[in-house]
Amino acid sequence: MILCDIGNTHLHFYNQKSIWRVLPEHLNKSFLNDEIYYISVCREYEERLLKMSKRCCNVGSLISIDTSYAGLGVDRRAACVSVRDGVVIDAGSAITIDIMEDSTHLGGCILPGLYAYSNAFAEISPALKKPLHFQVSLEDLPQATQDAMSFGVLKGISLLVADMAKDKKIYITGGDGKFFSKLLPNSIYDEMLIFRGMEACIQKAIQKGVL
Amino acid sequence: MILCDIGNTHLHFYNQKSIWRVLPEHLNKSFLNDEIYYISVCREYEERLLKMSKRCCNVGSLISIDTSYAGLGVDRRAACVSVRDGVVIDAGSAITIDIMEDSTHLGGCILPGLYAYSNAFAEISPALKKPLHFQVSLEDLPQATQDAMSFGVLKGISLLVADMAKDKKIYITGGDGKFFSKLLPNSIYDEMLIFRGMEACIQKAIQKGVL
Repeated sequence: MILCDIGNTHLHFYNQKSIWRVLPEHLNKSFLNDEIYYISVCREYEERLLKMSKRCCNVGSLISIDTSYAGLGVDRRAACVSVRDGVVIDAGSAITIDIMEDSTHLGGCILPGLYAYSNAFAEISPALKKPLHFQVSLEDLPQATQDAMSFGVLKGISLLVADMAKDKKIYITGGDGKFFSKLLPNSIYDEMLIFRGMEACIQKAIQKGVL
Repeated sequence: MILCDIGNTHLHFYNQKSIWRVLPEHLNKSFLNDEIYYISVCREYEERLLKMSKRCCNVGSLISIDTSYAGLGVDRRAACVSVRDGVVIDAGSAITIDIMEDSTHLGGCILPGLYAYSNAFAEISPALKKPLHFQVSLEDLPQATQDAMSFGVLKGISLLVADMAKDKKIYITGGDGKFFSKLLPNSIYDEMLIFRGMEACIQKAIQKGVL
């Protein structure tokens, strides 16, 4: 069994042994040699996968969570489903921040991902076409453009997460997750978060005989 | 005398009576019937102005401020120059947040402007191609996508400004300035901030005989 999480930039795979990700244009059949259970937030990339393998099953409808949120993305549901109490951050193309309490999803918010921030700056002015500086101090007021951009983005996100988290533990996944886990106190990086949620929902469905 | 502040989106004008702004493609000679003293952060738009009127004088070098910041944009210097103590926010194409104390610039940071945030979201996914909702509650956890995006951006900016401001008064200018002045406690909107700074520096230069 291969699990696949189709995002807005990459397709992420897990085959019970290792995790890997590919850009849609680099998809190839050689590693799709088993039944694929997938979730998707991108119809175009989903169709690319379906063209590549006939043994694909969209398990999105199995990933359910107790929430009042209208239209919570399937990747966010999967990331949240295995966290009883805590803040769940997926730092990928977008950054989503969700709050779980007693296995209930209380709500959440969305920010652009770090790559999207960089692009946004670059489009405003050539003077802002600079990579973010991940080691910028968040204690000292910036004294140059690159630090000023990096501080604005990273300090803003840190303060937002701290305000939403209060004393909850923070679980982080996604391409920039490892970086954010170093930035945010009381947080751990878990690259398996979405896949573990998918696995739990698939197991439950198998037990119930609906899969 | 007409003052002009050339930004990354608009050219802003002030003729001692009123303030107006135009997109560079809508520039026309009819209202450029006097000596124009200007500052610019956009070479392309500056050239358009220079083609339109021969009576233009770049006063950027006159707008000086006590700071250790390397390469502080001339519009930020102009906005800060007339604030002795306080936080200076210019909410335009980009959002700049600068700290003044005893007429010294202590540093500052940069975020994308609200329009750039909207574009960034739209480029991540069609699901995020929604306008920001300016009336979103910043007290309640969002329960839908549009609120989630708006909360992420506006609560993040509010917390960042509050953290940087501490108990300082907040002075806001720029196209989204009026909106932010309602959002941020202890703040006032001042559409003249940059022009007042320019005026003060021009007056000083005239008195010194360098203009």
